[in-house]
Amino acid sequence: MEERTEIADLGEFGLIEHLTKNFEIHNVSTVLGVGDDAAVIDHFGKQTVISTDLLLEGIHFDLMYTPLKHLGYKAVMVNLSDIYAMNATPTQITVSIGISNRISIEALNEFYEGIYIACEKHGVDLVGGDTTTSQKGFIISVTAIGEVTPDKFVKRSTAQKGDLICVSGDLGGAFLGLTLMEREKGIYLENPKVQPDLENESYIVGRLLKPEARKEVIDFFEQNDIVPTAMMDVSDGVSSEVMHLCKQSNLGCRIYEEKLPISDESRRAAYKFGLDPTVCALNGGEDYELIFTLKQEDHDKITLNEEISVIGYMTDLEEGSKIITKGGNTFNITAQGWNAFKQ
Amino acid sequence: MEERTEIADLGEFGLIEHLTKNFEIHNVSTVLGVGDDAAVIDHFGKQTVISTDLLLEGIHFDLMYTPLKHLGYKAVMVNLSDIYAMNATPTQITVSIGISNRISIEALNEFYEGIYIACEKHGVDLVGGDTTTSQKGFIISVTAIGEVTPDKFVKRSTAQKGDLICVSGDLGGAFLGLTLMEREKGIYLENPKVQPDLENESYIVGRLLKPEARKEVIDFFEQNDIVPTAMMDVSDGVSSEVMHLCKQSNLGCRIYEEKLPISDESRRAAYKFGLDPTVCALNGGEDYELIFTLKQEDHDKITLNEEISVIGYMTDLEEGSKIITKGGNTFNITAQGWNAFKQ
Repeated sequence: MEERTEIADLGEFGLIEHLTKNFEIHNVSTVLGVGDDAAVIDHFGKQTVISTDLLLEGIHFDLMYTPLKHLGYKAVMVNLSDIYAMNATPTQITVSIGISNRISIEALNEFYEGIYIACEKHGVDLVGGDTTTSQKGFIISVTAIGEVTPDKFVKRSTAQKGDLICVSGDLGGAFLGLTLMEREKGIYLENPKVQPDLENESYIVGRLLKPEARKEVIDFFEQNDIVPTAMMDVSDGVSSEVMHLCKQSNLGCRIYEEKLPISDESRRAAYKFGLDPTVCALNGGEDYELIFTLKQEDHDKITLNEEISVIGYMTDLEEGSKIITKGGNTFNITAQGWNAFKQ
Repeated sequence: MEERTEIADLGEFGLIEHLTKNFEIHNVSTVLGVGDDAAVIDHFGKQTVISTDLLLEGIHFDLMYTPLKHLGYKAVMVNLSDIYAMNATPTQITVSIGISNRISIEALNEFYEGIYIACEKHGVDLVGGDTTTSQKGFIISVTAIGEVTPDKFVKRSTAQKGDLICVSGDLGGAFLGLTLMEREKGIYLENPKVQPDLENESYIVGRLLKPEARKEVIDFFEQNDIVPTAMMDVSDGVSSEVMHLCKQSNLGCRIYEEKLPISDESRRAAYKFGLDPTVCALNGGEDYELIFTLKQEDHDKITLNEEISVIGYMTDLEEGSKIITKGGNTFNITAQGWNAFKQ
């Protein structure tokens, strides 16, 4: 029989203490962490970066196929990705949760174990949060703080005409993982005796359930004296993010279909589901890669990094935002990324 | 006919732009605010303080009697109160919301107007956030950042034996406001034709719906060279907060019933509802006053401030945490403050 502790047995403060007792402090800047009204963070000669995300059950995740440990890990990664997208280093996070009595302590332990692993991996301190009951559904709010050498942060609005457009890693995998999980969920709901068919699909499932914020790309920039002209993370899909870079920098762009980095696993999965891999790469969200622009003269600095692909370049606003297909046709890019308020 | 704009008409980014376009930047430290992956905050020779709260419909507020403007104001105040409770000055906030399609743009405007007023009043910058749909209920997550001269922040754990225990303002009003509103809601649900009877109750209703974070107390400390030995805000009720100060400082205390500051309005309302004003003052939550301890030699520095009451003093741990009634009886203090996980 599985152990089950009721949250009421601990009380709110007991719960916080219970959930946070294993977290160690990594940064000398963390003067005061969990357990008081607020956390104290020391910054001398550094700039503080802060980002926050709200994740809701049924909207951002489905507990039917999302293990809680992965969910905790992902909730942190999504925020760290935003900090790295500023060319900054994450240093602290706060985690607030709203939980119904459906969730046991053991389940919460799993969730916080994922948070713990994410924090350890990225040298980040959990410094606060809030816990409350919810009437329905699991609610997660994470805020991340980071630091950056003054004026080294990279915005979305500062790309220049002629700059190369680059992305890290590969695209579309998380969307294909989601497509697979939704398909398997549908099959399971129709016939609970059918076991999920996830064989050979561990790559795309991992892209969905356990995304990695791209710390090593930021480290690579620093080691190679690279400062992107503009940057953001790929959470809604590359076409949506490219449109943000263009709009905020007041420029247009050219993207080449053949340059879009797509893994063999994603390509195979797309064909299996009858989808176009290019469409998945352009419009699929949640890859949590970095998209950035670079001065052309910096091109040599990135050629040796196999994790970085040049997918196009920035143009004048008047030239529009277009994609050139493998067949040589040119289409306008439309941001079809995740839009929470459209059906 | 009232105007109603659907959130889908704006889209997520349009919504953020719409909701935040009127916010001005107050602090030179706000290098970059809303509109990018993360906000950038500059701190030279100051320490950064961060606090976060998650507020859920049906748990923390009831939209049936909470105007959205007040809710926005209160959501900010609750967080600023935590920053002031560190003896720090709030400088930035992030606000994340989860909203169902029940909420119109006009309703959200009201909510953000309350946030705006709170920010203006306290010189705080809104620097980020997240918006998403929710399947059910209105979800609010606020994170506040503040700054404090290095090592001037005040914790809960540093009270000393013999220190005076002080509170700002008066106690129990918010709880009595809640009692009134719940009573009126019950009457209304039974008979929607009955108008709410809130006459002469504006003080306690205001204490519930529009709490004020006690900036002026922190300002008074600075002007009069006062550094409390320990401090926290009164969100769960004074008895609960006193227990926190005692537990974290490893001390006991004596509280005097006759010293508890209770407004005439609260006292009158308590009698009307058949409640003991002392119990309301001790156990009622959401007053958002400050409770702090002070060295005895600093007593003269606070006597001229009518907003500050000395309610007792800290003792050795062995003497326990006790309240002395007007009749001279002594009882153990039990923290009966709001506990989210108990029925």
